Amino acid sequence: MGTEKVEIFDTTLRDGEQVPGCKLNTSQKLKIAARLDELGVDVIEAGFPISSPGDFKSVFEISKLVKNATVCGLTRAVRKDIEIAAEALKFAKKPRIHTGIGTSPTHIKYKFNATEDQIIERAFDAVAYAKTFVEDVEFYAEDAGRTRNEYLAKVCTAAVKAGATVLNIPDTTGYCLPEEYGQKIKYLKENVQGIENVRISCHCHNDLGMATANAIAGVMNGARQIECTINGVGERAGNTSLEEVVMILRQHPGLNLHTDINPKFLFDTSNMVASEMGIFVQPNKAIVGTNAFAHSSGIHQDGIIKNRETYEIINPLDVGVTESAIVLTARSGRAALAYRAKKMGYELTKLELDSVYTEFLNFADKRKEVGDLDIHTIMEITRKNHRIFA
Amino acid sequence: MGTEKVEIFDTTLRDGEQVPGCKLNTSQKLKIAARLDELGVDVIEAGFPISSPGDFKSVFEISKLVKNATVCGLTRAVRKDIEIAAEALKFAKKPRIHTGIGTSPTHIKYKFNATEDQIIERAFDAVAYAKTFVEDVEFYAEDAGRTRNEYLAKVCTAAVKAGATVLNIPDTTGYCLPEEYGQKIKYLKENVQGIENVRISCHCHNDLGMATANAIAGVMNGARQIECTINGVGERAGNTSLEEVVMILRQHPGLNLHTDINPKFLFDTSNMVASEMGIFVQPNKAIVGTNAFAHSSGIHQDGIIKNRETYEIINPLDVGVTESAIVLTARSGRAALAYRAKKMGYELTKLELDSVYTEFLNFADKRKEVGDLDIHTIMEITRKNHRIFA
Repeated sequence: MGTEKVEIFDTTLRDGEQVPGCKLNTSQKLKIAARLDELGVDVIEAGFPISSPGDFKSVFEISKLVKNATVCGLTRAVRKDIEIAAEALKFAKKPRIHTGIGTSPTHIKYKFNATEDQIIERAFDAVAYAKTFVEDVEFYAEDAGRTRNEYLAKVCTAAVKAGATVLNIPDTTGYCLPEEYGQKIKYLKENVQGIENVRISCHCHNDLGMATANAIAGVMNGARQIECTINGVGERAGNTSLEEVVMILRQHPGLNLHTDINPKFLFDTSNMVASEMGIFVQPNKAIVGTNAFAHSSGIHQDGIIKNRETYEIINPLDVGVTESAIVLTARSGRAALAYRAKKMGYELTKLELDSVYTEFLNFADKRKEVGDLDIHTIMEITRKNHRIFA
Repeated sequence: MGTEKVEIFDTTLRDGEQVPGCKLNTSQKLKIAARLDELGVDVIEAGFPISSPGDFKSVFEISKLVKNATVCGLTRAVRKDIEIAAEALKFAKKPRIHTGIGTSPTHIKYKFNATEDQIIERAFDAVAYAKTFVEDVEFYAEDAGRTRNEYLAKVCTAAVKAGATVLNIPDTTGYCLPEEYGQKIKYLKENVQGIENVRISCHCHNDLGMATANAIAGVMNGARQIECTINGVGERAGNTSLEEVVMILRQHPGLNLHTDINPKFLFDTSNMVASEMGIFVQPNKAIVGTNAFAHSSGIHQDGIIKNRETYEIINPLDVGVTESAIVLTARSGRAALAYRAKKMGYELTKLELDSVYTEFLNFADKRKEVGDLDIHTIMEITRKNHRIFA
């Protein structure tokens, strides 16, 4: 491809699972992890091992199962957390410990009751301690989105000195605008000592509906990992959607970035995660919603029939959706009706179509959708009312 | 407020309704229109009058009903469309005709089989004809997102000359990146003759998950109207979400922009539209999803209890959500458990909490959620297994 790779860090099983009422058991997590590995994600964040015995077990079992991806476990900047995570990752082919601490004024004051210097020290110590267990250590600066860039660069420099391989810059509250988040990444690229040897990661939340745009702004400014979840699931309004960032990078070759995700598995993976977690995907969800490729208005259907590219930028088959379903409603135009009628065996002249269309509109005004069988009924009504067919 | 106003153009009843299977009848549309008027939207796009008798009737009735907002009807750049729209808007206090034509190479070639100059002529004629019926005429350059900026500026200049009061710049296929869309608006601000007298409008689609970020990039670059829908409903992956853009402008005072929307009605309006259209909102939808303000992980619950601002940027009450529901799951930490237990009447010492938490985790590992009544059960189990309570 000749373009630079953006690693996909899937956190469906960790941040994604922090959803009220959606806890997965170990066998469900193993099933999803296997699918994520097939999908081509680079890193699977499998859980937060110290948080509960169930979570420890899931990380432990996923570590044994996964063939290709790095398996990652979350910790706080606490020795016990790191020890337990290392234990849970014991059998991973490529283990990663993800440790870190809050860096925004709110977090430093209310969560840790500490000073800025103490936080830097704790960050350094946590990364250094994690390095005694594994080579691959990712550091997160929680609430980086609301942390002053100067101070954030200092914390990151300490983490890099301690051996961090990846720097995760979370917009924990989903507050940033894309421009602002992109500038933050750019600042770190330019001001963290040793940054040339580490990968910057975007971790964005969707509280204001911009998690995807923020992650893209991040990679446009030098980040090379995106943390995301299938269907954008996660606490509150969720995380960056894996399927969205993957397709944005594919559809925008000018960005010169790519991922190793096989998009043909996206729709199927989305359905699997929705069903296992019991969190449905709304019909108008980008890429994987059931309506993402469905057209109902007349104008659009006419355009689509003439040339798919008029209204669709993605071929549904590319993401594993088997057809661009054209649904007839009272918004559907003559072209869509004629197209569907032809598929049902009715070749209509322009004059015939006028009459059928009138009856179709009366029919459709009373119904939500017009199915294939309804076409026959509409033809019958037209035959009676207009006497145009033999 | 001292800041510049961004007008909110709600198209839930027109573009939003172009969803397979979600057609609203006239009485439903009237109910929603009345609510939108209370919510404080500036413009209600009520329908596409020529498309069906039902749609004509809806626009006609909404025009009579609405007290404050401008009522708008969609047309193609076709005389008959414009005449019918003017008829449907006859009783509107503030009527607007929304007319336009496709301007991208794909649209010009495949949809109209025309030349660039012919499209400019048709654009001018349509606006000029609409002006013979109403003063307020909005022009849309369909697929502006994929139209060269130089040509787009020419089309827009013609529309302004013909009397357009608003220029709508749709990213019809949802293809643009925020930076790109923002640059397009900036280019038009600088290159359309007479632009100082008209309002630029953002109309973005969500095919790649960036409709909200694109609209915000638009207003950051000089647009002063956003076209959006409640819950982001609309054809395919839908449109910009009204609730998201409204809250972004409120949460980012640095942008110096405001809307006249009353955010306290957002949650209720979202529920009403979801129920009338039968299109559910996913739990992790920003602002209006049922989980938007729910916290389940231990870390976050601990933070929230110490200080809401640690993890929440919006007070749920501001958008009409009555409480920030804290749900207990196996991800919940000691603080959340102690908080909930206290509300249920159990004041626990640190030592007691350790024991109760162990039993809580065992219990929660088997359940999706732990409700208030379960707390009593957990206390009973702890009493038996640990013998710590008298």
